[in-house]
Amino acid sequence: MTEKKVYNVAIVGATGAVGQKIMKILEEKEFPINKLKLLSSINSAGKELVFNGKTIIVEEAKPESFEGIDIALFSAGGSVSKQLAPEAVKRGAVVVDNTSAYRMAENVPLVVPEVNNEDIQKHNGIIANPNCSTIQMVAGLKPIKDAYGLSRIIVSTYQAVSGAGVNAVNELENQSQQFLNNEELEANILPVKGDKKHYPIAFNALPQIDVFQDNGYTFEEMKMINETKKIMHDPELSVIATCVRLPFFTSHAESVYIEVDKEGVTVEDVWKELRNAEGIILEDDPSTQSYPTPLSAANKEEVFVGRVRKDLDNDKGFHLWIVSDNLLKGAAWNTVQIAQSLIKNNWLQG
Amino acid sequence: MTEKKVYNVAIVGATGAVGQKIMKILEEKEFPINKLKLLSSINSAGKELVFNGKTIIVEEAKPESFEGIDIALFSAGGSVSKQLAPEAVKRGAVVVDNTSAYRMAENVPLVVPEVNNEDIQKHNGIIANPNCSTIQMVAGLKPIKDAYGLSRIIVSTYQAVSGAGVNAVNELENQSQQFLNNEELEANILPVKGDKKHYPIAFNALPQIDVFQDNGYTFEEMKMINETKKIMHDPELSVIATCVRLPFFTSHAESVYIEVDKEGVTVEDVWKELRNAEGIILEDDPSTQSYPTPLSAANKEEVFVGRVRKDLDNDKGFHLWIVSDNLLKGAAWNTVQIAQSLIKNNWLQG
Repeated sequence: MTEKKVYNVAIVGATGAVGQKIMKILEEKEFPINKLKLLSSINSAGKELVFNGKTIIVEEAKPESFEGIDIALFSAGGSVSKQLAPEAVKRGAVVVDNTSAYRMAENVPLVVPEVNNEDIQKHNGIIANPNCSTIQMVAGLKPIKDAYGLSRIIVSTYQAVSGAGVNAVNELENQSQQFLNNEELEANILPVKGDKKHYPIAFNALPQIDVFQDNGYTFEEMKMINETKKIMHDPELSVIATCVRLPFFTSHAESVYIEVDKEGVTVEDVWKELRNAEGIILEDDPSTQSYPTPLSAANKEEVFVGRVRKDLDNDKGFHLWIVSDNLLKGAAWNTVQIAQSLIKNNWLQG
Repeated sequence: MTEKKVYNVAIVGATGAVGQKIMKILEEKEFPINKLKLLSSINSAGKELVFNGKTIIVEEAKPESFEGIDIALFSAGGSVSKQLAPEAVKRGAVVVDNTSAYRMAENVPLVVPEVNNEDIQKHNGIIANPNCSTIQMVAGLKPIKDAYGLSRIIVSTYQAVSGAGVNAVNELENQSQQFLNNEELEANILPVKGDKKHYPIAFNALPQIDVFQDNGYTFEEMKMINETKKIMHDPELSVIATCVRLPFFTSHAESVYIEVDKEGVTVEDVWKELRNAEGIILEDDPSTQSYPTPLSAANKEEVFVGRVRKDLDNDKGFHLWIVSDNLLKGAAWNTVQIAQSLIKNNWLQG
C-alpha cells in the first residue's frame, strides 16, 4: 500500500472571480489537498463556500494565516501579494502569485508550464503567473519557436472585460441594456478603474488596458512585451503589442504576426507543430469556416489557434489568431498547473 | 450675375443604409442638384423619400433610368453595378460606384480624394469607391507616406456590423437582447450572409469578413491588400491584413503597424504630419487618455488617429490606431467627395 501525499493549500482572494475558478479547478482535477484554507480581505471574511461538498468559512488573510500551509495561491491584487506573499514564504509555503507584483523580479520564475516548466524549480518561494494575454500568446507560439525559431512578434489584442474584474463585467452588462433601451450609458469602471476618465465599453472598443507608461505604451502592452521575453528566455526577441478592450465577457483573442528564423516554412508545417503541442487546439479550416472565437473558447482550458496564414511578402512571416479563456488558461488554470508541477516534480523545496 | 451649374443626380440603392447617408450628405453639403432621381430594386420602388423638403418617389432602376443623368451614385451591390453602371455610362452619366465590382479594373480609378484625387480625371465613365476599411487606412497613412515614405503595413481590424448591412445590425441588436435575457442566440447572417455557417456576433469576435479565398485570406483582407497598393500607386508596398468583425454598430477601428523609409522619424514628426492633413483629426494624448473609439467617431466625416507609438525595436516602425465611421468616410461621404471633385475640377468628361 502506498500513501498518497496531500497538501495544505491556501487561496488568497478566494471570493474573487479567479479565486472561484481556482477552487472549481482544484475540485475537478482532484488536487491532492489535505486542508484548504480560503482567505480574503476583511470585507469577505465570514462568507461560507463549499469545496468538495464541505463548507469552508472564509478567513481574513493575515501573516499568521499561512502557518502550516504548503502551497498558497494568491489572486487578490498586487498590493496584497506584496504584503503577504513574503509572510507566506517565511512560514514555509510556496506561493504561486497571479498578480503583477513579482513577475519581473529577477529571482522569481514567471511560468507557463507548456513553455518553461523547468523554470519552476529555480523558485525562492514565489512563482509568478504571467498576465492573461501573455500566457495564451506564448503558449500558442512556443511550438513554432521550438521548431523554426522566432525573432519577432507584433500582436493586436481583442480582450474581454472579465480581465478587468467583476465590476467591469457588470458595467458591460448594464451598459448593453442601457444602449438597447436608448438610455444614456453610465461609465465608471473601464478602461481602468483608478484612471482619470471612463468611456463606455458597450458596443465600443477601448484602445487602453491598464494605465499609460511614459513611452506611450500602456502597462498591459509593456507586460506582454517584457513578460514574453522573460518566459521565452530571449531578451533579443522583438515583441510589440497594441491592447484593446472589447465588449465581450470571456476569452481574449489575439491577431499575431510573427517572423520565424527558418526559411521556407509552410502553413502545413506550422499546423503540424500546433497539432502536436500540449494544451493547444488547432481550429483552422477555411473550407468549413473553422476558427476559434471568444464564445467558442470560453470555459475551456486549452489555447485555440486558427487563421494561420503565411505572409504574402515575407517568407519568414506568419499571421495567427490565438484565443483562450482569460480566467482559465489566462489565470486560474495556469496557476493550478504550476502547483501541480511543483508537486509532480518534487519542486516544493525549490 | 453668374449662373450656378446644377446637375441631374441618380442614387442607385437609395433606400439602403449607404444610399440614405448619401441623400443626407447631398442635402447637408448643398450639392448642386437640378434633379435627384432615387432608384432601387423593384421591391423598394414606390417608396416615398423626402429630399430638401420635397417628396421623391423611388423608381425601379433600369437602363432607361439613366437618360439625362449627369452623375449616378451606385450603392446597391456588385451585381447591380455590373449590370447597370455600363448602361448609365452609355447614356452619358459618370458613375461613382460604391461596390467592389470595378475597384480592381485597370481602366477604373479607385479614389480616396485626400490620397489620389488626381486619378479621378483618368476615368472612362466609372470611378470606384474603395472598401470602407481601406479608405480610412490609406487616408490616415497618406500624410506619413508623403513625408517619410512607406514600405510596409500590417493591419488588424476591429470592424462594425453595419458594414455587413442592415440585417447584420438587426442581428447584433437581437442577439444582444437574447444574451441579456439568457436566451439562445439566433445566428443567420454573420459572418457572411451567403456563407455556409453562421456564428453569434453578440459579445463575440468573428475573424472572418467576407468569404475565404484559396490562399487562406478572406476577400475583405485581400481587398485591403490590393486596393491599398492601387490607391497608393505602389505595387511594391507590403500590405497584410487580418479582418475581424466585432459587436459594435458603427465605425471601424484599425491597429496598424507601418514601416517608413526615413530613419530617425519621431512620434512628434508623425503627429505634425497628421495634424496638418486634410480630413484627419489627431486624437492622441496619453496624459488625458485621449484616443478615438468607434463610438466617438460615429456620425463624423473625418478619419481619427491616435495611439501613435514608435516601435521599440525598429527605428522605422510605428504603431497607430485609426478609427472612422464606416458608412460615412468609409462609404457615403467618400462617394460624395468624388462627385464634388468631378464637378469642382471639371472632370465629368474624364
